[in-house]
Amino acid sequence: MTATIQDAAALDARDSLAPLRERFHIPDELIYLDGNSLGMMPKHVPERVQNAMTAQWGTDLIRSWNTHGWIDLPARVGAQIARLIGAEAHEVIACDSISVNLFKLLSAALKLRPDRRVIVSDIDNFPTDLYIAEGINAMLGGQYELRFVKRDRLEAAIRDDVAVVMLTEVDYRTGERIDMKALTARTHAVGALTIWDLAHSAGAFPVRLNDCNADFAVGCGYKYLNGGPGAPAFLMVAERHLGTAMPVLSGWMGHAAPFAFDPAYTPDSTVRRLTAGTPSVIGMTALEAALEVFDDVDMNALRQKSLALTDLFMELMQPLEAQYGFKLVTPRDHARRGSQVSYTHADGYAIMQALIETKVIGDFRAPDIVRFGFTPLYTSFQDVENAVKRLTEVMSTRRYAEPRFQVKAKVT
Amino acid sequence: MTATIQDAAALDARDSLAPLRERFHIPDELIYLDGNSLGMMPKHVPERVQNAMTAQWGTDLIRSWNTHGWIDLPARVGAQIARLIGAEAHEVIACDSISVNLFKLLSAALKLRPDRRVIVSDIDNFPTDLYIAEGINAMLGGQYELRFVKRDRLEAAIRDDVAVVMLTEVDYRTGERIDMKALTARTHAVGALTIWDLAHSAGAFPVRLNDCNADFAVGCGYKYLNGGPGAPAFLMVAERHLGTAMPVLSGWMGHAAPFAFDPAYTPDSTVRRLTAGTPSVIGMTALEAALEVFDDVDMNALRQKSLALTDLFMELMQPLEAQYGFKLVTPRDHARRGSQVSYTHADGYAIMQALIETKVIGDFRAPDIVRFGFTPLYTSFQDVENAVKRLTEVMSTRRYAEPRFQVKAKVT
Repeated sequence: MTATIQDAAALDARDSLAPLRERFHIPDELIYLDGNSLGMMPKHVPERVQNAMTAQWGTDLIRSWNTHGWIDLPARVGAQIARLIGAEAHEVIACDSISVNLFKLLSAALKLRPDRRVIVSDIDNFPTDLYIAEGINAMLGGQYELRFVKRDRLEAAIRDDVAVVMLTEVDYRTGERIDMKALTARTHAVGALTIWDLAHSAGAFPVRLNDCNADFAVGCGYKYLNGGPGAPAFLMVAERHLGTAMPVLSGWMGHAAPFAFDPAYTPDSTVRRLTAGTPSVIGMTALEAALEVFDDVDMNALRQKSLALTDLFMELMQPLEAQYGFKLVTPRDHARRGSQVSYTHADGYAIMQALIETKVIGDFRAPDIVRFGFTPLYTSFQDVENAVKRLTEVMSTRRYAEPRFQVKAKVT
Repeated sequence: MTATIQDAAALDARDSLAPLRERFHIPDELIYLDGNSLGMMPKHVPERVQNAMTAQWGTDLIRSWNTHGWIDLPARVGAQIARLIGAEAHEVIACDSISVNLFKLLSAALKLRPDRRVIVSDIDNFPTDLYIAEGINAMLGGQYELRFVKRDRLEAAIRDDVAVVMLTEVDYRTGERIDMKALTARTHAVGALTIWDLAHSAGAFPVRLNDCNADFAVGCGYKYLNGGPGAPAFLMVAERHLGTAMPVLSGWMGHAAPFAFDPAYTPDSTVRRLTAGTPSVIGMTALEAALEVFDDVDMNALRQKSLALTDLFMELMQPLEAQYGFKLVTPRDHARRGSQVSYTHADGYAIMQALIETKVIGDFRAPDIVRFGFTPLYTSFQDVENAVKRLTEVMSTRRYAEPRFQVKAKVT
């Protein structure tokens, strides 16, 4: 659709996903456009966590591993996520953080291409992805070329000396979405493997890992999946690699028989081989509960709403681009973006601080990007309209120029 | 002290730590001797977690990283643990699992001894410790000798070709405690480095890492520290290695400036360099709260109570050894044990299942070990007396021979 300025209330009234907003705890008057950093809390999650604390841990104690199914939590949560990312349930498991999971998958993928010595990524990838490749290379004595290039040079960088291409589907700064299918095909054409980071994809729109023939993926539990701060991450291994992807982070939970206490490591035959230590039961319980919000959600409808929200936002922002110097860095093309919209502005940091004071929460990414995330589960069209109204007021009054907005907080 | 059978109630009445028991949620009639597997829940923890969910995540959302100090949680919790393990606050940080932390520390330690190719451990070490060494060696092309030997051959195995000696201070099966000071000295004498696994030490008795001149350590948050199922683990780096121990699991949280989003990795100068991804805020909050129980605890008094509990247990068990074939595998010598007592018995699995039915919870470790953990914070002398009474009844009635106790549960 082409966005036209319409009455936001009317758009909300016609929105089939609108009732989902009621399932989230939304503080008074808050317009939260930062679900791409930390998702909002579904209302039912605290009670579920409370139950895991008092009825499970507190009362049934160690027996809960069996009686409350703690041992199967990582696989259960993985199966919930699988549908959202276009994978099979047995290809996905929840565990650790994205950084740790990238380490596991990249080291395993490199072993599957033993004669190649190049890792390709986007130099503007989320830094942890690059750091992990750097760490693996340091551990291996620097024998790899880390071919980190600007996005427009990616295709050219993927040549037949490449072992692994690791990319994030949606850029955390610009919101630009890579063509996963084309890049995967290009990677396979030269005999290399892909690792996709779905941090800004999973839960934001329907990801199609198997349709794209992806090899491996990682993703985040606390952004669009709303699993809570520091929620467990997840990883995906395509079925064809399940038997050959060898874990180097070979902890006891990935052993074929963890409770046999065998001194020699034998990887489990399933995706569980890529887990390491004891999972965070409390964090995993929060994520499991949060994912239930997606149970009856049509992911294509979710995507349509996401595009309508972001189209409306871009349209309403056009006068501010012209008048106040915001520059859109997110592609307008639907196929080329995720569920966030970003602008550059020289005063971006102060503007975002002033906007937050008006109870519109987005975030800032150095050096000059203001970032707005739209979570179709709880963001309304009226949120979009009101956010732009409040930003217009921040700009027209120049309130952002007040000294108190210039001081950078520790975390932004 | 030499244990003599005394009135357990009188011992409880004289126990200066007895009031701490009131701080834990103890289900009716339950005698819980499995705190070495999963510690009991301090009563105040659920409310603290609830607050982190609703007031922090739910209401303040992303701003909580600053306003509720989430960003400093790993270091704060590390500082709480430092006192219990004889380290300085700035040497300890809470993060990830033991398996992941061992991977970080072992890979870093090996780089500090680049000319050596031997890793020494106890073949009866907790399997994950051995598996992690195996995984690192596989990643490095099998260039290391994994010199995993029986405990009585450890000293002989530590020769001048050794890079790292990784040991668990207290054996998870037998409860035997290694002389950390002597083994560390022996390791340093040949120019190697130590990694101590404190899974069954931290919170069980005063550990003296710096007094022993230890190099590195890892430990568990969910056993004697009572942080809840799958609680974050911790790691310790001796101050002299803080600047040189290089993380290969180089995630963004360990970067010198995580929010600068620099594409090149620069490790933080502090122990934070050994963190990787975003910490589990909810799990970390539970652990932080749980650790407050230790605030005013004299760790030497804790050790004295632990020894009195285990002495009494061993003494009361002597008739069962003689009559029913239990064989003590834990050293009687105070200096040579932690806070658990283990016996072998051919029918160990069924006996433990039958005992659990009487609401005495210990656990079983293959092939034939029944294991009883004593947590001085909440285990009473009357618990000890009643546990042995109920076990005596299980044995005298031969109830354990009933078929329903023979079927192994998934997790034991």
